[in-house]
Amino acid sequence: MRIAALSRAGGVSPASIKYYVREGLLPPGTRTHQNQVEYNDDHVNRLRLIRALLDIGGLSVEAARSLLAVLDTGTLTARESLGMVLYALGERRSSVGESEKETAAADVEALLARRGWRIDERSPARSTLVDACAALRLLGHEDLVAAMDDYADISESIAAIDIGLILAEPALDRITETAIVGNLLGDTLLSALRRLAQEHLSSGLLPEDGPTGAGQVS
Amino acid sequence: MRIAALSRAGGVSPASIKYYVREGLLPPGTRTHQNQVEYNDDHVNRLRLIRALLDIGGLSVEAARSLLAVLDTGTLTARESLGMVLYALGERRSSVGESEKETAAADVEALLARRGWRIDERSPARSTLVDACAALRLLGHEDLVAAMDDYADISESIAAIDIGLILAEPALDRITETAIVGNLLGDTLLSALRRLAQEHLSSGLLPEDGPTGAGQVS
Repeated sequence: MRIAALSRAGGVSPASIKYYVREGLLPPGTRTHQNQVEYNDDHVNRLRLIRALLDIGGLSVEAARSLLAVLDTGTLTARESLGMVLYALGERRSSVGESEKETAAADVEALLARRGWRIDERSPARSTLVDACAALRLLGHEDLVAAMDDYADISESIAAIDIGLILAEPALDRITETAIVGNLLGDTLLSALRRLAQEHLSSGLLPEDGPTGAGQVS
Repeated sequence: MRIAALSRAGGVSPASIKYYVREGLLPPGTRTHQNQVEYNDDHVNRLRLIRALLDIGGLSVEAARSLLAVLDTGTLTARESLGMVLYALGERRSSVGESEKETAAADVEALLARRGWRIDERSPARSTLVDACAALRLLGHEDLVAAMDDYADISESIAAIDIGLILAEPALDRITETAIVGNLLGDTLLSALRRLAQEHLSSGLLPEDGPTGAGQVS
């Protein structure tokens, strides 16, 4: 198909298609002898994935490029694939709470030890967690840092579902895509469900008339 | 303190401070009779919160402004406050999977009915969930849509912790801040924990040599 047909099928303007090709997110089409560029169904599918990562997952173009590069590597085991996806999901750069960073690193170290989680020193998620803890401490939200064990408990149940979905996939390229989509769109899905559950629960647990119920649930 | 001292205390450049004031995120300082602008500790705290929302929470300036506006309203009940925060967290605009939107809306409707969650029609989290489901269906990931019940189950446990933290706060302004920080930084914290749990579990559950274990966990 020509770029106009690809544009219709993918719901993306020709200018954006050219941009994604230039940025290495979308493989270029094939030039025919009439000097036309031809695209196929793989381009349509890739275009949909790109838009889902950018628009629903909220990724930057750079972050989407590293994730799609894992998908294009193509010859990994399931574990290697998930590992590469997890590492490509990257680290949120921030120096909020530089002064709290050492304490936050100790918080995270202690949490990992308590749970017996074996995590590589270079894990980007580990750095993200340290950054988040440092910011929480700087803002005076030690209560949220203290709740990390409860959240970690629940995260193990989430990860078990995640890994189950990955294991249910029959082919390796599909495994990588499930790891990417499950993590990215899964985060959006989970935070939406979390807010809906808060909205539902708050009608029962939060009093209408202010914080008089303080301490009711602790 | 002068802007230079505020800049040091908040770890933010004077140019950014002026930008945040202009954008309505940070209240302006007080002009003294020497025509100097004076800032206080509230400015330092607000500056830290702004940076946490932007840098760790990944919010846009517009989104941060609506959240901080809830904080500045100041005279809400706990439930109203959480409700306003949840609605200010906003909706991810996207039209990925326009053709799947009707099916996705039915998916979400059915989920809410199964769980007995009472959710307002205008809930932004509801629209986000519909968008995420539409994108998942378009990408051929019905498996992830089907897992939504399991994720929803877990989300109720997360929300119970969230509400518990809010109820433990003694004052209303602190309740609103906990709702904001807990949701925003909490999402970052949860997704980091989710990836760490995946890294840990994958060493036990995912075989080294590819998807031969497919179906092992379903």
